[in-house]
Amino acid sequence: MAHSLEAMFHPKAVAVIGASDTKSRIGGRPIHFCLQGKFRGDIYPINPNREIVQGLKAYPSIKDTPTPVECAIVAVPADIALGAIRDCIDAGVKSAVIFTSGFAEAGDGGAKVQREMEAMIRESPMRAIGPNCLGMFTVTEGWYATFASAPDTLKVPPGPVGIVTQSGAYGSHVFIAAQERRVGNNYWVTTGNECDVDVAEIIKFYAQAPDVQVIMASAEGVRNPDRMCEALEMARDAEKPVVFQKVGRTELGAQAAKSHTASLAGSDAIYDALFKQYGVYRAETTEEMIDIAYACQFGRRPAGRKLCIQTISGGIGVQMADAAEKFGLDVPPMPEQLQKDLKAKMPFATLRNPVDFSAQTLNEPEKMVENLRRTFTEADYDGTIVYMAGVPGTPLMGAACLDIMRGLRGEFPDELLFMCMAGSAHIVPEYEALQYPCFEDPDGAVRALAALAYFGEVFKHGRGDAPPAAPKDMLPAPDRAVAEHEAKRIIASVGIPVSRESLVQSAADAVAAWRDIGGPVVLKIASPDIPHKTEIGGVILNLNDAAAVSAGYETLIQRAKTAKPDARIDGVIVAEMAGTGVECVMGVVRDPAYGPAVMFGLGGIFVEVLKDVTFRIAPFGVDEARRMIDEIQGRAMLDGVRGQPPADIDALADALARLSVFAHANRDKIESIDINPFIVLPHGAVAVDALIDVPGDGE
Amino acid sequence: MAHSLEAMFHPKAVAVIGASDTKSRIGGRPIHFCLQGKFRGDIYPINPNREIVQGLKAYPSIKDTPTPVECAIVAVPADIALGAIRDCIDAGVKSAVIFTSGFAEAGDGGAKVQREMEAMIRESPMRAIGPNCLGMFTVTEGWYATFASAPDTLKVPPGPVGIVTQSGAYGSHVFIAAQERRVGNNYWVTTGNECDVDVAEIIKFYAQAPDVQVIMASAEGVRNPDRMCEALEMARDAEKPVVFQKVGRTELGAQAAKSHTASLAGSDAIYDALFKQYGVYRAETTEEMIDIAYACQFGRRPAGRKLCIQTISGGIGVQMADAAEKFGLDVPPMPEQLQKDLKAKMPFATLRNPVDFSAQTLNEPEKMVENLRRTFTEADYDGTIVYMAGVPGTPLMGAACLDIMRGLRGEFPDELLFMCMAGSAHIVPEYEALQYPCFEDPDGAVRALAALAYFGEVFKHGRGDAPPAAPKDMLPAPDRAVAEHEAKRIIASVGIPVSRESLVQSAADAVAAWRDIGGPVVLKIASPDIPHKTEIGGVILNLNDAAAVSAGYETLIQRAKTAKPDARIDGVIVAEMAGTGVECVMGVVRDPAYGPAVMFGLGGIFVEVLKDVTFRIAPFGVDEARRMIDEIQGRAMLDGVRGQPPADIDALADALARLSVFAHANRDKIESIDINPFIVLPHGAVAVDALIDVPGDGE
Repeated sequence: MAHSLEAMFHPKAVAVIGASDTKSRIGGRPIHFCLQGKFRGDIYPINPNREIVQGLKAYPSIKDTPTPVECAIVAVPADIALGAIRDCIDAGVKSAVIFTSGFAEAGDGGAKVQREMEAMIRESPMRAIGPNCLGMFTVTEGWYATFASAPDTLKVPPGPVGIVTQSGAYGSHVFIAAQERRVGNNYWVTTGNECDVDVAEIIKFYAQAPDVQVIMASAEGVRNPDRMCEALEMARDAEKPVVFQKVGRTELGAQAAKSHTASLAGSDAIYDALFKQYGVYRAETTEEMIDIAYACQFGRRPAGRKLCIQTISGGIGVQMADAAEKFGLDVPPMPEQLQKDLKAKMPFATLRNPVDFSAQTLNEPEKMVENLRRTFTEADYDGTIVYMAGVPGTPLMGAACLDIMRGLRGEFPDELLFMCMAGSAHIVPEYEALQYPCFEDPDGAVRALAALAYFGEVFKHGRGDAPPAAPKDMLPAPDRAVAEHEAKRIIASVGIPVSRESLVQSAADAVAAWRDIGGPVVLKIASPDIPHKTEIGGVILNLNDAAAVSAGYETLIQRAKTAKPDARIDGVIVAEMAGTGVECVMGVVRDPAYGPAVMFGLGGIFVEVLKDVTFRIAPFGVDEARRMIDEIQGRAMLDGVRGQPPADIDALADALARLSVFAHANRDKIESIDINPFIVLPHGAVAVDALIDVPGDGE
Repeated sequence: MAHSLEAMFHPKAVAVIGASDTKSRIGGRPIHFCLQGKFRGDIYPINPNREIVQGLKAYPSIKDTPTPVECAIVAVPADIALGAIRDCIDAGVKSAVIFTSGFAEAGDGGAKVQREMEAMIRESPMRAIGPNCLGMFTVTEGWYATFASAPDTLKVPPGPVGIVTQSGAYGSHVFIAAQERRVGNNYWVTTGNECDVDVAEIIKFYAQAPDVQVIMASAEGVRNPDRMCEALEMARDAEKPVVFQKVGRTELGAQAAKSHTASLAGSDAIYDALFKQYGVYRAETTEEMIDIAYACQFGRRPAGRKLCIQTISGGIGVQMADAAEKFGLDVPPMPEQLQKDLKAKMPFATLRNPVDFSAQTLNEPEKMVENLRRTFTEADYDGTIVYMAGVPGTPLMGAACLDIMRGLRGEFPDELLFMCMAGSAHIVPEYEALQYPCFEDPDGAVRALAALAYFGEVFKHGRGDAPPAAPKDMLPAPDRAVAEHEAKRIIASVGIPVSRESLVQSAADAVAAWRDIGGPVVLKIASPDIPHKTEIGGVILNLNDAAAVSAGYETLIQRAKTAKPDARIDGVIVAEMAGTGVECVMGVVRDPAYGPAVMFGLGGIFVEVLKDVTFRIAPFGVDEARRMIDEIQGRAMLDGVRGQPPADIDALADALARLSVFAHANRDKIESIDINPFIVLPHGAVAVDALIDVPGDGE
């Protein structure tokens, strides 16, 4: 069975409801573009007041068309749009592109009408994009269901890149800028208010479309998180890079998104988690998104991160080596023998890597050829960037450069090589035809090659590993907020190591618990009303004799009563002292859209001052947990600093994955979990304190 | 008296030594370019074998020209270049541009010849750039002393931006890319091997040239640091923004620079320090350097950091607000009354800031005008970015947009406003003529506006404040490496607070010292051979009775003898316990080129794991020290975290400035200083440990 969106992307017959004879009007532009683009199917202008529209026979209603309409454009005002959509459904129209604005983005009244529209479409077999969108197009079909000016700015042939954005104006911007960057785009969709089809569904379509290999997407909020996860997973399974610009990154940005109509920006940390989990490349800027998509469209990826930098200018080689370090590529030296051999032939060159073959080499093209040929053959790089400054664009040297590179492509058809050059717009297509992606900015070239390496890794490791199985005797989520002792009992049942301890209600029992533990203990007040124990002096460390333990018990009870007379007091926890290790924190937060996400960070200033934390959506396996651990800025702490032994990463990753399993199993029952501190020892780990909060509860 | 480089930039008569009749040859290209560029002065081809070169009368020698030559191009092979330069000097030529390669970049032999060339030029009144350079040009003169293809790629009229790069190929690249970005460049210089004129001297020339307002520079290494400091100070005094791309940023990059010929990349931290101190904008990429210069060329700067974002698309507004946070601009809300008034007229708009005036407004231009007019009048923003996606470039709406913006410029001639739009190359010049800088990338627009704000601040605070005066009884630098006790005695004489302490040679004296201090003390082994005391257990904390102090003394002596039998032992330091404060580190390193630089960072993991430190070249005042303090990532630690009181920033800044004064006063006598930890208390501060190393000494 054909995809339900096929009718929209490849329609045989289309209609424009609200068709205008004036080419520049919203209802006239799609017809004009389709005629200009030689749309192969039938175009039915719908306009009860005209016989002919832009030279085409017009029809009074969508019900009057001679053949069934596969896609109808709705370009009528808001007050009659609902009727037009009803007519489409009744006429068996397969899909609709609804330009009309004045719905959710226009306040409560519009939102109400939009909900009616949604219900009507949901109950029908018709699919729709919009309302309040700039439409979509398929270049190869000559099918332009849009009133954006984008089709006027087509510059490069359609290619394997599919674009989808929520915002119409921004979608236009991306298309125009992508054309200027020579990104071959065939499908373009703006989803607007998303009454039916959303960005995720278009990503799914692209993931399945054989003529899409690279996906560029932008959204402010995601209405259906499960669908977005599915879509990104489909794209990864199909090994199609997704380059995403999700706006609302910083706190300030998120605030602005909240005040923006008809969208929910969600928490940005969740999107970072989502994109990392599904191997999406999150672009920070429009320029970056487009540059990465450009590189991806060539369909080549390096097998690893070893970069060879070949330049006409030593200084730029250094600059690019700097960029390689920044973007995580390696710049290993050329093999020593090769350096020696080439130095003998090119005495002016620097050959370590970056290689500076120097402008002089260009006067002797055979040396340049030998340099690259032997590098491809004898060195083990995953990709090469050749920086030529303005030379390839010059009348004098341009032809020689191109000959060199054409010859090398013949010998090395599969070599991944980027050209970096300035002022070369006129000859770029020739290099691209040889499968050499072209860049003007040296740093941009390095960034793009790193992005290809990233996608290579993403597709290599594929779907995340399975989350650990939940233990059979895993306790249920509590039905109210629980403090340390109970919280640790629950997480222990998930398989997360916790400190040995007892909850006692008398000094005598405290002493007995100390004897039982058989070593120094810590005493902590246990009260659901005192989540921050240290603030009231509710923790006494390192007691190791009966008198001190007994006195400690009384002291804690007294302090709690003084500081919080109304607090419910469960007693005192007597716990073994945790060993020396690296202090970490982990936790769970419930995102309103994506459900529970697991947080990991190092304790102390790493969390409090540097906000050095990372998130993943639950559940996930230990491999994903390891990637979380590797992401944090203070990662080196876990390898042991100041002579400390390395921490047990296995134990840490296992605990994170187990926490994600518990969070997922109780996704509607848990508001948040804090495990802080979680001490990672040289062997093993131990949760020293924990809190579990439930929805609608908390302080 | 005219600047000594005037003859090079604005020559009345020029010669080309090694002139070629073939336009495409190195000795032919400058003549071709000058003829094409209608150079107003005389051109004398020097070629003993021809009567006529490219239609001009040729002369056998530089000594035969009919009028004195102000600038001679040397385009002959290396083996005869020295003779040609000698001839120039003898003929009284005022300046030379030496293309010839094969000198310092070609190994030891070439370096030797280059030193001869340097000496010859130094002893003459002639100025020279090169050798091994691509030359220079002055567009308004039609004077192209270059064989680069750059003059063929001139696209925009000459303007106020001056370019100087060390690398010729990169200089070419920058020029071509800058032309594409519509950067108005008149002077262009590549300095090559810098036998005489270096990048710094060209910056000085630009700082003084009335027709240069913005300076773009790139260098791999700086041969004369004092000159670079002078040059940057001149540019700042003249309020001319300097945008610098210094290569060799990361460790890897620095390594590559070392292997690159004829240059010394220096330590990158020193360049960061230098650029911060002199208010240079350090661009990370070529694209960034050019984009910032583009924005600077309009000559407008915001008075502060308050940005108004006006967009046609809410999502992009959010994206730009994110960028503003990243680049340190504020996005304060519009005045409430203004929001209400405008909302009444533009119900679809979001008006807080970012303002989303929505595409609908464009159908009613008067609303768009009113929106911006009232914003300029009633709100207090320092700059505005208007994002219009592809609309201004469209046939349909383009004229209306331009009319709106032209009308507003008439009403608000001084308003700083950037346009952000795509696909608008054809209409950009019209907006630029209205003094609206134009950007395609939204993040790029925000970054550029932040750069203008940065320069505004730089020019406002001008030269750094004066370093504190050195105390009259400041001790001299030691003549050998000194450890804690002596080092602290020296820094105390500079006015840096140190802990109260005594150096004792017996247990009895240790007890007496403890009594004298009158509170808990720390005992530390004192030995020039044990710089890392804790590693041998050489520190005992918090002793407060005679027996413990006495025993502690013996323990330390014993530990030192066991761990390092050959160590010279000066005794034991008895010091007061430092109060509770924020642990910092400060120090001095001697850069081989720039002399002593002062380092500041927070202690512990901030230095050891995060490398969160910053540098300044000594000496500097307390204001500069405050800027250092404000730069570090962990800055919030000093404001008090986890309920700690704020640390005494005044005391910290004072100590840094004083350390810089001592380092500068002893610039050749100090290899390094470590003050670690330096505890900053709620009131005051105290250096707990210190080490001073001297050149050629140390472990």
